[in-house]
Amino acid sequence: MINLFEPVGCTVDPVAGSLSNATGRYQKRFGELDGLYADRPAFDAMRAEWHDRVVYEVSEFRPREDVGDLIFGVTRMSPGKVGDEYFMTRGHIHQQPDRPEIYYGRNGRGLMLMESPEGEVRIVPIDELTVCYVPPFWIHRSVNTGNVDLVMLFCYPADSGQDYEIIARSGGMRSRVVDDGAGGWKTVDNPAWQPRDATTIARLYASRNAGAPA
Amino acid sequence: MINLFEPVGCTVDPVAGSLSNATGRYQKRFGELDGLYADRPAFDAMRAEWHDRVVYEVSEFRPREDVGDLIFGVTRMSPGKVGDEYFMTRGHIHQQPDRPEIYYGRNGRGLMLMESPEGEVRIVPIDELTVCYVPPFWIHRSVNTGNVDLVMLFCYPADSGQDYEIIARSGGMRSRVVDDGAGGWKTVDNPAWQPRDATTIARLYASRNAGAPA
Repeated sequence: MINLFEPVGCTVDPVAGSLSNATGRYQKRFGELDGLYADRPAFDAMRAEWHDRVVYEVSEFRPREDVGDLIFGVTRMSPGKVGDEYFMTRGHIHQQPDRPEIYYGRNGRGLMLMESPEGEVRIVPIDELTVCYVPPFWIHRSVNTGNVDLVMLFCYPADSGQDYEIIARSGGMRSRVVDDGAGGWKTVDNPAWQPRDATTIARLYASRNAGAPA
Repeated sequence: MINLFEPVGCTVDPVAGSLSNATGRYQKRFGELDGLYADRPAFDAMRAEWHDRVVYEVSEFRPREDVGDLIFGVTRMSPGKVGDEYFMTRGHIHQQPDRPEIYYGRNGRGLMLMESPEGEVRIVPIDELTVCYVPPFWIHRSVNTGNVDLVMLFCYPADSGQDYEIIARSGGMRSRVVDDGAGGWKTVDNPAWQPRDATTIARLYASRNAGAPA
């Protein structure tokens, strides 16, 4: 006889971006996002007003971290730009890089910016009816390209983990998402981006099926 | 170098209960649900009108079935009753019973009826803002207790599989969800229900962490 986990119902508030019965929550304030955006003077100029303001926050339900279990939650990101670059999350690849993630838009307008280990770039626009499937091995970051909060549900395997440093180690993601001057967005190349070397790429792919049965 | 799966965006129609870019779909018609409901004469009387009508349908996106990957989709169930028993899905436990599932209500009103291997019963009511977490080892079935289509998103580990026979082998689930005569629902005991024996229960729990790393 094992100790069964109890079923749970959580209520999503798609405007507030909150989740009832969450087991954890974290907030990222503007001041913690130093170095994320290309336009350093614009970032510094915003500090006075923005330093302690929450740019994005995550409420999650994390039953346990067993192989085969799932973690889910809600993420909310404010609208805004640093210079012409839209607010975004730090972004990550999973620590076990062969783990995928699913996002479901519930409010606002944004996109998922993805990058393969080799540096291929993909974008999936997200509105309040979009499910975005981030397959195994894609680095991913969400971007709020609208003028209201971007709220999404997410779900990923409980043993995924997050590696938040992979992006910084390459000088950012290869593409940046900026205002196109006509109320929309476009991507521009990030000149600071450095390709990952063959050893780093091989190490990422070596994790494939790390959770497979013996 | 491995062949990366391409990111995908799918659009959910929360009223139609459909999913764009789905990789598969199945429909359950009334005539296929023979034996599911308690009131056999009521079922037979509905056949003339209902036999070929779709009671529920599932559109899914199934990238592949690797350990650690995810399958997601949308399920839609018509409102209705057989006698006083609300329309429901056949229900299942995962073939790998330690796999969980997440549901997210998008339209209508219903509930998740769950039963542990030992026969404990749990219910999570679901409306268009509810995320329901079905933990590992719980048999689950959804029930439409409203008068419009019940539409939900779902997500589960790609290696879960479904065992649809576990319920039939016990003479149905332990509780049935029926009209309470006041516009709501209540549960009644299912007199045909037979507890699972100790060997069957042990076999279900033996799968625990079957997908754990060697």
